[in-house]
Amino acid sequence: MKETCPPEAPAVLKIECPDAKGLVYKVTECLYRHELNIVANGEFVDPDVQRFFMRMELAGELDRAALQSELETILGEGALVQLPESRPKRIVVMVSKEAHCLSDILVRSEFGEMNAELLAVVGNHERLRDMVERAGYPYYYVPHEGKSREEHEQEVLEVLAPLNPDYVVLAKYMRILGSAFVKQYRDRMVNIHHSFLPAFIGANPYRQAHARGVKIIGATAHFVTENLDEGPIIEQDIFRVMHQYSPKQMANAGRNVEKHVLNRALYLVLGDRVFISGNKTVIFE
Amino acid sequence: MKETCPPEAPAVLKIECPDAKGLVYKVTECLYRHELNIVANGEFVDPDVQRFFMRMELAGELDRAALQSELETILGEGALVQLPESRPKRIVVMVSKEAHCLSDILVRSEFGEMNAELLAVVGNHERLRDMVERAGYPYYYVPHEGKSREEHEQEVLEVLAPLNPDYVVLAKYMRILGSAFVKQYRDRMVNIHHSFLPAFIGANPYRQAHARGVKIIGATAHFVTENLDEGPIIEQDIFRVMHQYSPKQMANAGRNVEKHVLNRALYLVLGDRVFISGNKTVIFE
Amino acid sequence: MKETCPPEAPAVLKIECPDAKGLVYKVTECLYRHELNIVANGEFVDPDVQRFFMRMELAGELDRAALQSELETILGEGALVQLPESRPKRIVVMVSKEAHCLSDILVRSEFGEMNAELLAVVGNHERLRDMVERAGYPYYYVPHEGKSREEHEQEVLEVLAPLNPDYVVLAKYMRILGSAFVKQYRDRMVNIHHSFLPAFIGANPYRQAHARGVKIIGATAHFVTENLDEGPIIEQDIFRVMHQYSPKQMANAGRNVEKHVLNRALYLVLGDRVFISGNKTVIFE
Amino acid sequence: MKETCPPEAPAVLKIECPDAKGLVYKVTECLYRHELNIVANGEFVDPDVQRFFMRMELAGELDRAALQSELETILGEGALVQLPESRPKRIVVMVSKEAHCLSDILVRSEFGEMNAELLAVVGNHERLRDMVERAGYPYYYVPHEGKSREEHEQEVLEVLAPLNPDYVVLAKYMRILGSAFVKQYRDRMVNIHHSFLPAFIGANPYRQAHARGVKIIGATAHFVTENLDEGPIIEQDIFRVMHQYSPKQMANAGRNVEKHVLNRALYLVLGDRVFISGNKTVIFE
Repeated sequence: MKETCPPEAPAVLKIECPDAKGLVYKVTECLYRHELNIVANGEFVDPDVQRFFMRMELAGELDRAALQSELETILGEGALVQLPESRPKRIVVMVSKEAHCLSDILVRSEFGEMNAELLAVVGNHERLRDMVERAGYPYYYVPHEGKSREEHEQEVLEVLAPLNPDYVVLAKYMRILGSAFVKQYRDRMVNIHHSFLPAFIGANPYRQAHARGVKIIGATAHFVTENLDEGPIIEQDIFRVMHQYSPKQMANAGRNVEKHVLNRALYLVLGDRVFISGNKTVIFE
Repeated sequence: MKETCPPEAPAVLKIECPDAKGLVYKVTECLYRHELNIVANGEFVDPDVQRFFMRMELAGELDRAALQSELETILGEGALVQLPESRPKRIVVMVSKEAHCLSDILVRSEFGEMNAELLAVVGNHERLRDMVERAGYPYYYVPHEGKSREEHEQEVLEVLAPLNPDYVVLAKYMRILGSAFVKQYRDRMVNIHHSFLPAFIGANPYRQAHARGVKIIGATAHFVTENLDEGPIIEQDIFRVMHQYSPKQMANAGRNVEKHVLNRALYLVLGDRVFISGNKTVIFE
Repeated sequence: MKETCPPEAPAVLKIECPDAKGLVYKVTECLYRHELNIVANGEFVDPDVQRFFMRMELAGELDRAALQSELETILGEGALVQLPESRPKRIVVMVSKEAHCLSDILVRSEFGEMNAELLAVVGNHERLRDMVERAGYPYYYVPHEGKSREEHEQEVLEVLAPLNPDYVVLAKYMRILGSAFVKQYRDRMVNIHHSFLPAFIGANPYRQAHARGVKIIGATAHFVTENLDEGPIIEQDIFRVMHQYSPKQMANAGRNVEKHVLNRALYLVLGDRVFISGNKTVIFE
Repeated sequence: MKETCPPEAPAVLKIECPDAKGLVYKVTECLYRHELNIVANGEFVDPDVQRFFMRMELAGELDRAALQSELETILGEGALVQLPESRPKRIVVMVSKEAHCLSDILVRSEFGEMNAELLAVVGNHERLRDMVERAGYPYYYVPHEGKSREEHEQEVLEVLAPLNPDYVVLAKYMRILGSAFVKQYRDRMVNIHHSFLPAFIGANPYRQAHARGVKIIGATAHFVTENLDEGPIIEQDIFRVMHQYSPKQMANAGRNVEKHVLNRALYLVLGDRVFISGNKTVIFE
């Protein structure tokens, strides 16, 4: 069964495999036979691992199953071929007490500016419930008090399971996640960290930055891995500070850049523009 | 006769033609037959003009003439196929009195950081001669006093002709060039303009910016066309200013960004990374 | 009657007058007699108009009326001495159809991150009513269809009058305001313009920017004057774009920077950090 | 004896002392008696250490000795009053093999754009001698091979001693300096570090940055202390990188920002615009 993909809403094709001669030729030959038009195309070979990454946007009559199967045959074992469905990604947002990143997501979601279906918000505090419910989304409160990390994370996992999200977005969720949790959503969990990683890993980065007397402060969006703040970086940005800024003023100023960086990272991830290569990302804008 | 292109010093292939289905396939099929490896690849279709742009870096045994001719046959009329020689571009720099952009080019040239062979510097003042000659390059002084624009430009053209440069770099050359001159070096002349175009076209942009009270100032590198400051933009960058900056301080601060923007633009142009599409550029980094 | 101003919530003193020798001495002598501590101090003399600007933050027991009157006597005629009340500024936001700037203000307002009391939102469309009312603020719909500009603005003025705002914030209000309206809120109306002024004045700046092929796009917050997009600039910022961005993508990307720039400008204006000097601003961060 | 200081070339007055009420009044009263005009004024109280910093630019007839002594009396013990001589600072630049920062300094020096008298360049390699001598400055070669760190630094100190510089600029001097050396030039030695400190301390920061997959890279200018890369930060700036950048390309791109950051830091330091407060800087632009 064929699906019509117009040029202004093309299908995305993502391929990664060991590098070899003729890959682009073989892939595009297959697309040509399928009479698909290449609207956009990005390629990269990571020289450190000799791995090939390719992202295409395709227009035309798409026979998803046939194309996938043919490309897998052509590229052979070790190749990963993805033709993500042409629907907005399903996301759940996790929060603690801070509203700025969440509110940005809620508004974009409400006004159709975010390429995602927001399923729910899960928080370990009640502070943001009202804001979420007013916007018409379900809010799940999973308090952590009096529970072990494992117990708490298990409860969150139970909330997430029936929602079946494509991605989990940590929008200032201020708890460290254990490896059991991370394993469930490996490569599908995006966090916003309030510093210019790898500077100021861990707690209170604005206080650390103030103590060090830096002149520039940043924020980092990254995939979540078992090692705190060590996951593949998706996006970073910065702002300038001056000697008269207190840690509180730095944190205030930082909210803007956190919001902005998370938003950029989500644009990239939800648009199937990001590959993970080891501890790095390969991004096709 | 074949030329060996190692992956770390690949050959560049630039193609532009009307958009059509199968272009990437046809090109890569040809490269595959030639047993060339694609080290890097960028593509773009300008939707406004339905034109296809492609830049590749190729490694392997390159038969330049055969590849060019085959690709031209495959792509048909209206296609422009370029396989620029694997040698640094030959450049001439034109200056007036300001040293900052020129000195940057001289140093990069001397220390092998610029992918170009600097043939000479041409100036309409004597102020920078010493600096150029000390660095070991010829300096041609072509004063403009008492000459019509046409006469002066004719003299400059006569200096340039035997040097036969690939590109002419206007590194703070402060005279407007007439259409006869521009025609000779169409698409091969890069200028650095000391404002964030299209704001503050024309003379004294820092004074204009000061009078308008802007908070950010910029610089623009562009190809030179008949219309002053209207050519295709290659690169831009900015810096922040404050109310206490005088026009002179703005100009001082501006030198850094002018230098930086021109340097970036030259990196792109001299590396065959820029296409011109109408009044815009298509750039593959 | 005295008012206690702790160092962490100091009173602001703003002075402007013709420049003269001894101004700082005379002002600080008066503050010393009043036993006020100077927590922060910024000064500037605009050399073009020989005008002195000073902004101080004062801690201690403040006799507002006495201090104001003494300073006016000391500085003489032509001096403007302001001791704005220690309360959040009262603001009204005006909108059309775009949600991003408004939603940012609503969230900051709700979570106490904006140093202002949001009185109401006034719009010439109904699209944003729901969002405003859900957040608990009144929304006034003043449609413009079938009315002359003067009639429409008169209606808006009648809505604003009883609210008595200190500042009117144009958060993507997409109509030009006439001079009668501007006169009412001179120096008290902040607009966000979706370009890097003075580039791309007027309508559709992202389309203009796309057509010109710029590599950087910006936003500008400014005070509103009779001349469209010509008022004193408060804040600007930019973002980079690439050849593959459509005007729509530029506009999408632009929302982030518009929001950010308006937020910065409001921080400065609502904190009494901005002076207007002719068509420029003098800002003490 | 009095010295005439016109407004366009004012004298700088720097004061630091424990914070107290009336400091600005007392200082400006003294300046008023001296009939000096305050052209620019910056103040800051570091709340963490309750220390007051003030920098003024003064125009009029200056009796340097009398003013200094009066201010010291007025401010009492613990105050540091500086009235640096109205002459360019005397600097020595130290280098290893990289030309980009040095060449920038040489050009600015030659063209009067640097507010400093360049006395000499000292290097532990011969590579840059020619460039320095061609520009007309002495080059001292002090090789480190076959010497202990102490011996080598002792030799450098012996070269520096007769030159008697106000500041030593480490323009990509790639050796760590011992505490004996640092002690001699405490608070008078500026280094450019090729990363966004505190990220990537130590050797090969571009390689570290590449391995971590960051999206932004920076440079940091700081005063040199006994602890490597831990001294007070004067200026920082950044540039964006993409997945396709090799460590070498990152280093290439980094040169621009290193040059720019060092230049900014020197502008600030050589203009007496920087105070050191513990491990931070207080800067009045």
